[in-house]
Amino acid sequence: MENGAGNEAAAAWNFAPNDSLVGVTALSVRGVLGRIIAGMVEDGGGGDGERPVIPLGHGDPSAFPCFRTAPEAVDAVAGALRSGEYNSYANASCVGLKLARRSISQYLSRDLPYELSADDVYLTSGCTQAIEIVCSVLARHGANVLLPRPGYLFYEARAVFNGMEARYFDLVAERGWEVDLDCVQALADRNTVAMVIVNPGNPCGNVYTYEHLAKVAEMARKLGIFVIADEVYAHLTFGERKFVPMGVFGSVAPVLTLGSISKRWVVPGWRLGWIVTNDPNGVFRKTKVVDSIKSYLDISTDPVTFVQLIENTKQEFFDKTVEVLRQTADICWEKLKGISCITCPSKPEGSMFVMVKLDLSCLEDIKDDMDFCCRLAKEELVLVLPGCAVGYKNWLRITFAIAPSSLHDGLDRLKLFCLRHSKPKM
Amino acid sequence: MENGAGNEAAAAWNFAPNDSLVGVTALSVRGVLGRIIAGMVEDGGGGDGERPVIPLGHGDPSAFPCFRTAPEAVDAVAGALRSGEYNSYANASCVGLKLARRSISQYLSRDLPYELSADDVYLTSGCTQAIEIVCSVLARHGANVLLPRPGYLFYEARAVFNGMEARYFDLVAERGWEVDLDCVQALADRNTVAMVIVNPGNPCGNVYTYEHLAKVAEMARKLGIFVIADEVYAHLTFGERKFVPMGVFGSVAPVLTLGSISKRWVVPGWRLGWIVTNDPNGVFRKTKVVDSIKSYLDISTDPVTFVQLIENTKQEFFDKTVEVLRQTADICWEKLKGISCITCPSKPEGSMFVMVKLDLSCLEDIKDDMDFCCRLAKEELVLVLPGCAVGYKNWLRITFAIAPSSLHDGLDRLKLFCLRHSKPKM
Ligand SMILES: Cc1ncc(COP(=O)(O)O)c(C=O)c1O
Ligand SMILES: Cc1ncc(COP(=O)(O)O)c(C=O)c1O
Repeated sequence: MENGAGNEAAAAWNFAPNDSLVGVTALSVRGVLGRIIAGMVEDGGGGDGERPVIPLGHGDPSAFPCFRTAPEAVDAVAGALRSGEYNSYANASCVGLKLARRSISQYLSRDLPYELSADDVYLTSGCTQAIEIVCSVLARHGANVLLPRPGYLFYEARAVFNGMEARYFDLVAERGWEVDLDCVQALADRNTVAMVIVNPGNPCGNVYTYEHLAKVAEMARKLGIFVIADEVYAHLTFGERKFVPMGVFGSVAPVLTLGSISKRWVVPGWRLGWIVTNDPNGVFRKTKVVDSIKSYLDISTDPVTFVQLIENTKQEFFDKTVEVLRQTADICWEKLKGISCITCPSKPEGSMFVMVKLDLSCLEDIKDDMDFCCRLAKEELVLVLPGCAVGYKNWLRITFAIAPSSLHDGLDRLKLFCLRHSKPKM
Repeated sequence: MENGAGNEAAAAWNFAPNDSLVGVTALSVRGVLGRIIAGMVEDGGGGDGERPVIPLGHGDPSAFPCFRTAPEAVDAVAGALRSGEYNSYANASCVGLKLARRSISQYLSRDLPYELSADDVYLTSGCTQAIEIVCSVLARHGANVLLPRPGYLFYEARAVFNGMEARYFDLVAERGWEVDLDCVQALADRNTVAMVIVNPGNPCGNVYTYEHLAKVAEMARKLGIFVIADEVYAHLTFGERKFVPMGVFGSVAPVLTLGSISKRWVVPGWRLGWIVTNDPNGVFRKTKVVDSIKSYLDISTDPVTFVQLIENTKQEFFDKTVEVLRQTADICWEKLKGISCITCPSKPEGSMFVMVKLDLSCLEDIKDDMDFCCRLAKEELVLVLPGCAVGYKNWLRITFAIAPSSLHDGLDRLKLFCLRHSKPKM
């Protein structure tokens, strides 16, 4: 579109780009994968028609038949749509949303020592918007938030966009990616408002024990900071450890639990998430966090009205999903052992990912993790997320949440790629 | 939820509310109506079972059978949902979104002197998120944006939240709510990045002529500022004037057109909107507005994947909607003439609203527009938006987009209310 008659040299436009948007693309999984894909496509990749692209980058298995969502869920949404009763703005059609909030509060209360009410639940357009809201509400000039490294950098992008500082504490690979609590204590000051934990973990695939979460809560209480518990992968566990919600410790330190239907129901395109106040002592009310959330919701878009949380989803569906993930996590773990320039510190027990360390010294002509991923995409049509996109340079995040046969294929290609680029043995 | 055992006095929480959220509720239609409804419900209103609440506040007629959306639209969405092909994240399922972007570009190009491409279209979760994105992208420290008064204050809320100053130019009631261009010129300076126009108008129900829009574009060009054209009510016109999209003047000044399916398809709960770059000279690309939009989209939630723009919606559906609006606009205009303490400067020709002036000197015990609306809600169960919510104190915004019989009922009650509160004649 560049056929206009106007002479643009004549007009000077006042606009200058907003600095706080510079660099955010590098902080989003989507942005980083987008660059890798663009490079692959440019090179003619993705279109060779013979080999399919193997997506080990995103945590989104919904395109694979073995991860197809539950038919009950589709029926519930289609029914609400066809009824014509959910066409209105969310606040107008109070009923639908009140029901959804109640059903989410009941769903989450099953795993808690106290009962949530519908008023503890705020509906969002996926966990993505939940993060946007929480960052917008907690931000104020001079405030800072503590984030895990490796981690989901989207928190940094939203925090910084809202003028809040992001400080990183370590997760310790040798201790199953536990939070380094000394590090948390060292980072916090009077301007620290919250710490984030992601459990089950993205990108590490770890699951925290009850005891470890209790210690996190005690530390948060000691420091006077809230806990933001990102539980978007809740119940996707397939190792020894069961999922324990952080809300269990809501009376020790107030917890904002974030979640969505994207992962457990395998429908990230449906965009329904939530923020839940796990706070039996009413701290969020007293400190006006609740008022601030409500204010921000007044100037935010709502989730689609007819996408309701699907109360009647059968347990078998959830069990089947976890079973496939257990199987693919096993495949991943076994196959990665056979790739020489990659080490995997621990077997994933939850979520959809595993972090592996790249040994660049074994590789002949690879500059760094981004270079590795770009060339892997071009040469083998395998997409993997470079560690830089999760704050861990020269590691890789690999998702195993795809069909087993594709995973085999993808990891075989990864192995070939590493062999081809290995330094000759001395 | 206040049964925790913890002694909260012991812990001091670091959080302090974010100042930029204070007062935003007063800038949102939802927030202001919410307060009025809360007062009504508290007083036992809304539950008397005999008289229904008449909603003349919101622009959302979707609950009335005569405004029921087109069956083709429901079928298209249900089909996409049932196919199982739209469960993925939007960027993964490129096809669906690419199709939607193409169909929106074709739909909008019909009314333009040049052809838009799919790449000019960015999908959003309703026009609400389109406004959020545009404000986030244009904001930078010290920047300001020019907004119409009376107007849709949501722009101010989002601009100010992002640290941008909002300056108001007048719409002139005596000239059919035309933009006061001298006022625009007087307000603009080197830090002005854009001006907003809403056409067809909310809250005024006006429709701009081709000639007036041409003048707006010339002024924007002269001042070096972009035009944000909020066309969420596009094609909802029922007077003499036809809708002319601002994009027609995109080669004079670059235009960001915002729209959604909420109003024309009467499905505000479905949350699909767009930002379109109407810019044949490529100014948005050169000034990096396009890059900034893409960056911000990388850290934003997406619209639901299976809600597509519904290309196959029959013209009869659109015609029927406009016919009902023509009828209800007539009813409104005629009935308002018979209410003594209210004056209506011009008959609405578009959108779903009309602005009327309240003559407080005729009323005995009403303090202001907010007081008027709160008491009207309590006494008559009629909801009307106070002018303060659109930046026009002691006026009212009334929507006529409801079923004709309910509109009659509501305006009768409004008349009774005014009579009851009128000062006795001298
Ligand atoms: C840790 C974490 N939080 C939040 C999200 C966003 O999820 P949603 O699809 O609900 O927006 C993701 C998505 O991958 C995630 O990994
Ligand atoms: C002028 C204007 N812009 C934007 C919107 C938001 O519309 P949507 O439902 O698409 O978010 C509205 C809603 O009433 C409006 O009146």
